[in-house]
Amino acid sequence: MQNTEDEFYAWLRSVASNRTTLRLGIGDDAAVVDIAGTDCVVTSDLLAEGVHFEADTGDFMLVGRKALAVNLSDLAAMAATPVAVTVSLLLNKRQGMRAAKNLISGMSPLAAAHEVALAGGDTNSWDGATIVSVTALGRLEGEPLTRAGARPGDAILVTGTLGGSILGKHLQFDPRVREAIALRSDFEIHAAIDISDGLALDLSRMASASQVGVEIELAHIPISAAAYELASANSNGKSALERALSDGEDFELLLAVPPADAQRICEQGVLGIDVTNIGRFTVARELYRIDEQGKRRPLEVEGYTHGL
Amino acid sequence: MQNTEDEFYAWLRSVASNRTTLRLGIGDDAAVVDIAGTDCVVTSDLLAEGVHFEADTGDFMLVGRKALAVNLSDLAAMAATPVAVTVSLLLNKRQGMRAAKNLISGMSPLAAAHEVALAGGDTNSWDGATIVSVTALGRLEGEPLTRAGARPGDAILVTGTLGGSILGKHLQFDPRVREAIALRSDFEIHAAIDISDGLALDLSRMASASQVGVEIELAHIPISAAAYELASANSNGKSALERALSDGEDFELLLAVPPADAQRICEQGVLGIDVTNIGRFTVARELYRIDEQGKRRPLEVEGYTHGL
Repeated sequence: MQNTEDEFYAWLRSVASNRTTLRLGIGDDAAVVDIAGTDCVVTSDLLAEGVHFEADTGDFMLVGRKALAVNLSDLAAMAATPVAVTVSLLLNKRQGMRAAKNLISGMSPLAAAHEVALAGGDTNSWDGATIVSVTALGRLEGEPLTRAGARPGDAILVTGTLGGSILGKHLQFDPRVREAIALRSDFEIHAAIDISDGLALDLSRMASASQVGVEIELAHIPISAAAYELASANSNGKSALERALSDGEDFELLLAVPPADAQRICEQGVLGIDVTNIGRFTVARELYRIDEQGKRRPLEVEGYTHGL
Repeated sequence: MQNTEDEFYAWLRSVASNRTTLRLGIGDDAAVVDIAGTDCVVTSDLLAEGVHFEADTGDFMLVGRKALAVNLSDLAAMAATPVAVTVSLLLNKRQGMRAAKNLISGMSPLAAAHEVALAGGDTNSWDGATIVSVTALGRLEGEPLTRAGARPGDAILVTGTLGGSILGKHLQFDPRVREAIALRSDFEIHAAIDISDGLALDLSRMASASQVGVEIELAHIPISAAAYELASANSNGKSALERALSDGEDFELLLAVPPADAQRICEQGVLGIDVTNIGRFTVARELYRIDEQGKRRPLEVEGYTHGL
């Protein structure tokens, strides 16, 4: 158990009724539900003013976009194709209708780009902070991709670059929906997760779900320009590498792929996005980092957690 | 447009992309989405402390139950069979895990009774009020029942009794899921809505969606014991009848049914629940109430609105 949220979900799994209609339940990026014989992928994420965004500095169009994007990123991690979303809004009375329209307007271009229908939701107002709760539904071609399928010997692949998302990417990232579907279609992919809470933490979750260990090569981690920028400003003293390991909200894909397919993927990238091999899954269920001198040390797992 | 919320939804319908995967969009109790060729019914409702419940008096198990029940009631209005829900929680840090467990535990018996799977969700905490956002998924046998199918000459039927829900029913009502499916299976039902915002308001919504008018017989409206109790206490001066017409949160079914089927339904009830014929739909798109003396007056539409 990395944190209280994980403990709560362990409890939740223990009480959630194990219905036959629930093909894949709590514990992955999204669930898979049997609707009259068809797999429906479903995921929900809620953004709150003061927790996930600030009203005084926040552009509600960007907040709306992000509320949709984080859900699409969860569908991407399952290699699901987004179909529709519901949006429940709790609006501050002073901001009211203008905020509502900005939140929805901010979602529209991303929804259109992924052919996602706005299927409805709920709207209320109060004197408190603004809340945006989104649920996304998707469909599958074949079996869902989960975080539980990594095998010893698989390469650890990551799309794009990591760290420093707070400088802007966290609001404007492109959920890797098409990339996930393209990779799934053309290659053997054993497991996937989206990096929402930091590379190390999400990698540890995949390793735990797959009952394997990991070795990552620090020299191979694709560090973002934003992570270097923050490190050079010496913001909180973290190095660019530490940021790439632990910063949240990258929303890149982390994949477990057999070595031959991994090599081909890294050579060609996917839909113009670089894909990098950063290590391998191991039989021993331990997490290691290997530095540039080849020295092997335990990987500290830290990252953004929601903390109850 | 009865209120600002309706105006917002009109705007929302105008901007929501009209995807072919959206079989039925914003404007009914739930939406119908095409997931790989299968109809999936989806609805979302959010409950907020201070708006829908009070933390100091609220039993979080009852709040959790209600958050599930209002969503199941929306599925009932479409004659959909509930399959799964996602639950997003925003918890107050002082209440934390205990509140979360109570919210979920309060849902469990109702979920079990309707064989609904808890498929996942999102959990965060903050210093603010507690928020429970639920999305329910359902499946259909045949076409969805909507609020738009009422025809002139159809009888207006209502399940159970109306008014005074605030005395307790609003927290402990049984969503009319099985009743809706049974009625749909055995009879011709043209339209349905659940009475969440008061009989008059929800009836006006059905009439508007169906492009018909209504005449209701005040003497036939099934007034609840709770409505009489509140009226005799002279709480805010409303009569029991006025409460049955305008109180929110009854969560009974309002149905448009051809006269012959309506008579059979009212004679036998449904699954032990009384069903009452309270009037008829008309060609003229106006709303009337007929009192015990046979006097016909315009029906005032009032009821709980969420108000932006």
